[in-house]
Amino acid sequence: MSLPAYLDERRQAVETALTTCIPDAPPVIVDAMRYSLLGGGKRLRPVLALSACEAVQRREGPDAWAMAMPVACAVEMIHTYSLIHDDLPAMDDDSLRRGRPTSHVVHGEGMAILAGDGLQAEAFALLAREPVSDDPRIAVRKLAALQTMAEAAGAAGMVGGQALDLAADPKHARPQQAPPAPVMDAQALADMHARKTGALIRASVIAGAIMGGATDPALAALDRYAREIGLAFQIVDDILDVEGASADLGKTAGKDAASGKPTYVGLYGLDRSRELAAGCLHRAEAALADAPLDGARLAGIARWIVDRRT
Amino acid sequence: MSLPAYLDERRQAVETALTTCIPDAPPVIVDAMRYSLLGGGKRLRPVLALSACEAVQRREGPDAWAMAMPVACAVEMIHTYSLIHDDLPAMDDDSLRRGRPTSHVVHGEGMAILAGDGLQAEAFALLAREPVSDDPRIAVRKLAALQTMAEAAGAAGMVGGQALDLAADPKHARPQQAPPAPVMDAQALADMHARKTGALIRASVIAGAIMGGATDPALAALDRYAREIGLAFQIVDDILDVEGASADLGKTAGKDAASGKPTYVGLYGLDRSRELAAGCLHRAEAALADAPLDGARLAGIARWIVDRRT
Repeated sequence: MSLPAYLDERRQAVETALTTCIPDAPPVIVDAMRYSLLGGGKRLRPVLALSACEAVQRREGPDAWAMAMPVACAVEMIHTYSLIHDDLPAMDDDSLRRGRPTSHVVHGEGMAILAGDGLQAEAFALLAREPVSDDPRIAVRKLAALQTMAEAAGAAGMVGGQALDLAADPKHARPQQAPPAPVMDAQALADMHARKTGALIRASVIAGAIMGGATDPALAALDRYAREIGLAFQIVDDILDVEGASADLGKTAGKDAASGKPTYVGLYGLDRSRELAAGCLHRAEAALADAPLDGARLAGIARWIVDRRT
Repeated sequence: MSLPAYLDERRQAVETALTTCIPDAPPVIVDAMRYSLLGGGKRLRPVLALSACEAVQRREGPDAWAMAMPVACAVEMIHTYSLIHDDLPAMDDDSLRRGRPTSHVVHGEGMAILAGDGLQAEAFALLAREPVSDDPRIAVRKLAALQTMAEAAGAAGMVGGQALDLAADPKHARPQQAPPAPVMDAQALADMHARKTGALIRASVIAGAIMGGATDPALAALDRYAREIGLAFQIVDDILDVEGASADLGKTAGKDAASGKPTYVGLYGLDRSRELAAGCLHRAEAALADAPLDGARLAGIARWIVDRRT
């Protein structure tokens, strides 16, 4: 099977599974949660969770990825909630996401905040509930995967990265914060992105692998792989923000550069940024090469992340 | 030990435990999370978690409540995040909470949103991580407690209740919502509060009892108890909103009535509302009476909820 067909098969399985992830609840909140969760997207993180599970099990297909499907859905729910909150007027103030009006434009700011809050809670409810099993060994795996996801979503991970991003934005200076935030250097930019974007990408891979029964050496290799592709993803995002068109991206292009936000392209220029992304890809492939798993698909996904145009 | 001394002992243990619940992370987000989490409050929900654990174990003290302390801290983290978001300008727009300026007044709206998001994620990380144990039976209990908490915090529970509350508020009409929301009748008001406030109070009791090793009959009795005290808590809140002074409450008194929000006092009047709260207390005591647990302290807490002045 070609990589595009492989990705499509998993994306479609994820789309189907996501439709069952919102519980029976008041329609006003269900509608807002579904609007954003089922509004398209690359579904990169859920595919990574399924592929990591397949890689450690050394087999492909629904039987192999079934254990990781709750992780796949939960990571997309957490990612979606973070986009809803990130787009709010008090944060990035964006009106276009995945080619459609953002949540607060459609549902109002208050309901958008609640839709994000609800998606986060339901992500963890799903991880605690599924896969349904009486086997205590599966319970141990589920707890480990859930802890990985929650810590990645929390203050040391995604939320911490967004806080650093926000604090570095002059227009969001805190009321009681006297001096303006210092401009980020390369190290601060890398740390911010490792948290904001990298932590959840890493958690997708690690939690998917844990559900597949990964050994410690496999997890160590996947940890190195995931950190490299997380960084590559952000570098390419910055490149596309400069090169891309809003219609292709499904979000407002050129916005980061225009707002004066720190970016890899801003720090290093386009050519050096492309070299940095290629270096990440090289190290990601090397991490997989000697690992006790079948890393061919994960290597393909790494190349796709670097080569993507949207 | 008197009930006030019993409550104080548990509150102090919770305060101490809460100081360790925020991970090592960027100071800008840690500061915002700690400001709200360690800013006082009745700590009713964590005390309920500890007391439910003690009740099913039929013994009191730190050894008995140790299993439930992560639940106690996590429920307070979830409650605190919900207060931060509820106070935002896009929601209730309140500037005073627990006697201090609200999070967004001090840290800005964006950072307040992130502080709430981070507290929710860290609550689930804590529940997955602690109590640390290699025993698969403890893993099963932790998953069950976590699922109870996440479902209570989610779209069918707390977030759903807040969405119903928001949708019923004329000043928060959604952009694409043509007709104004209908005024809530008694049943809609009860449903809204059962979700918004009741679900998390119930989860405190149930998750604490699960960590203590509760049997199914004990959980069934505690479920009835918790639903009654959750309703009583809200009725008394509405009474205090009319009768109380802002200085005692630590939040703006009379605000719900002034804003035209539906309340028990508005629907039933003060005298009938007091009778309704007394009825809840009676049924909560009855639920405990025949249950296979030591319910004396939980009954005392129920009375305290109904008799409280703040």
